Amino acid sequence: MSVNIKMLAERLNLSISTVSRALRDSYEISESTKIRVKEMAAALNYHANPYASSLRKHRSKTIAVVIPEITNNFFSLAINGIEYIAQEKNYHVLIYLTHEDIQKEIGFAGHLQNGRVDGVLISLSAATDNYDHLRELKEKGVPIVFFDRVCDSLECSNITTDDFEGGFTATEHLIQNGCKRIAYLDLSKHLSISSKRKQGYLAALKKYNMKEEESLIIRTTNNNAENEEIISQLLTGPHKPDGIFASAEKLAIACYNVCERLKINIPRQLKVISFSNLEISSLLNPSLSTITQPAYEIGKQAATQLFRYLEKKSVTPAYENIILKSTLIPRGSTKK
Amino acid sequence: MSVNIKMLAERLNLSISTVSRALRDSYEISESTKIRVKEMAAALNYHANPYASSLRKHRSKTIAVVIPEITNNFFSLAINGIEYIAQEKNYHVLIYLTHEDIQKEIGFAGHLQNGRVDGVLISLSAATDNYDHLRELKEKGVPIVFFDRVCDSLECSNITTDDFEGGFTATEHLIQNGCKRIAYLDLSKHLSISSKRKQGYLAALKKYNMKEEESLIIRTTNNNAENEEIISQLLTGPHKPDGIFASAEKLAIACYNVCERLKINIPRQLKVISFSNLEISSLLNPSLSTITQPAYEIGKQAATQLFRYLEKKSVTPAYENIILKSTLIPRGSTKK
Repeated sequence: MSVNIKMLAERLNLSISTVSRALRDSYEISESTKIRVKEMAAALNYHANPYASSLRKHRSKTIAVVIPEITNNFFSLAINGIEYIAQEKNYHVLIYLTHEDIQKEIGFAGHLQNGRVDGVLISLSAATDNYDHLRELKEKGVPIVFFDRVCDSLECSNITTDDFEGGFTATEHLIQNGCKRIAYLDLSKHLSISSKRKQGYLAALKKYNMKEEESLIIRTTNNNAENEEIISQLLTGPHKPDGIFASAEKLAIACYNVCERLKINIPRQLKVISFSNLEISSLLNPSLSTITQPAYEIGKQAATQLFRYLEKKSVTPAYENIILKSTLIPRGSTKK
Repeated sequence: MSVNIKMLAERLNLSISTVSRALRDSYEISESTKIRVKEMAAALNYHANPYASSLRKHRSKTIAVVIPEITNNFFSLAINGIEYIAQEKNYHVLIYLTHEDIQKEIGFAGHLQNGRVDGVLISLSAATDNYDHLRELKEKGVPIVFFDRVCDSLECSNITTDDFEGGFTATEHLIQNGCKRIAYLDLSKHLSISSKRKQGYLAALKKYNMKEEESLIIRTTNNNAENEEIISQLLTGPHKPDGIFASAEKLAIACYNVCERLKINIPRQLKVISFSNLEISSLLNPSLSTITQPAYEIGKQAATQLFRYLEKKSVTPAYENIILKSTLIPRGSTKK
């Protein structure tokens, strides 16, 4: 249970009104009392909440979108979908970037507890392996909806795409276009989307009686230069693949950069397909085959779900798991 | 002069403490008094400021970055630079997207007056032709630093690149590679960067004794489909150009899409160069020649400038205009 101002006042043997004014740095309160109050507040992990009454009435008129990166077209499209709904409701949208760093995510979750926003839409960082910060945020009464990179261990609504089917379809497409050795570039060991896409990849291999090889399941990092090095080693090693299924756009870009440097011809020597919403996929050399997620629609659905909580006065709506379909768009990078 | 809580209390013939509690929806205050206070606050355009004391002491530990779009690599790199500095100072960064809409910009400026953030970094929307909302924000004591798309009529620090030289260099590069008729794709009639880039373009034409033609100076819009239509007409008209200088990345992408559709070969039939920080410029077909801005450094400098204000206790530091150099990167799209 979280510490409220009444508990703080009791512990200090002061009135609630005095504690409240001390926390607001009121001129009516002496410096020494302010210090006492703030020290106790820190000791009890009490979060000063100047927006407390706003929060209860949803008056910040603001929602937060916490995402791992900004250069990814999936997220920019999802944000457009979120903003479309928020605008209808006359809400502001704030964007928080974690850069795949769990410490930043934890920092934001703490920051968002004080009533700055009425609700939170979040797509987890690739490094997030513990959800206490989000559990705490939820327990403070801030509604959370997950999209794309969701958390299975918290009771919240989740908006995702059919990641297993996407992984299966991408891999099957490579097989049908002649690939015999297909590598999977994995984004994270923690994210459920990574694991589902990998399961889809493995299921397709199995269907076509192709052997699963540990050396073709590649763990990547959050550093593009490191990823290019990892892919270089893969493509110059003794058991190199003739097809790559990248679970994220930036990993496909890394493949293109490596192939350009190593003079490996895509699609002749290596076929590449990726989960991606890159708007200029068709302008790349060669154009990139993609599994494209309905990113804008995911954003709309996630925001719609969040506003269902914000608009309910007392009864909490049921949590929902909404799964939208992705689409295979074959282009030059997987041509036979 | 803005209305403060003391003036509000005097007008209502109530104590400051009562007004303050009424605005905070305190249970100690009757509903009827709350309504009186809130009506008067609205009438006098008083912005409830729960963070007032925080603001004076910079305790929101948060800065806002207001930008026109998220899918532009310039802005994502600039944000990375801003976050680098903010992290050193232990500050959070919030991103507000205007989508080139002045009404959204005005809405954010109002929202930011209430002490949610300690300072604001902003790059203007293409539609912004009036700066009252930013003047008001500044007068409320919120420091503002402009970057890239700056405002010449407000006294603030501005961080830009050498837009005139960039425009000159891009145009000269096209001329030196054989272009005889060069079109300029203009981003906005309001933005100073657009006008400076255009001045650079005109200066290069003049240097090489080439005629300035109104029909080759193309006003674009904030709608990609419309821009593609405008470019289609340009490229199929009677006086079509053999070179295009795009003042923004999205306009170059629109050119590529149109040329693909119309089967116009870049660079044989049309050479294209653009202001752009697109990380995958070299992977396009053909690779895109660019004037590349030091976006990350611009972000760092803008944030550094803002923290100079935040860290000064009483004396306001002088405003600065910092101009960083852009770089010509010739690639396939302008090859002879």
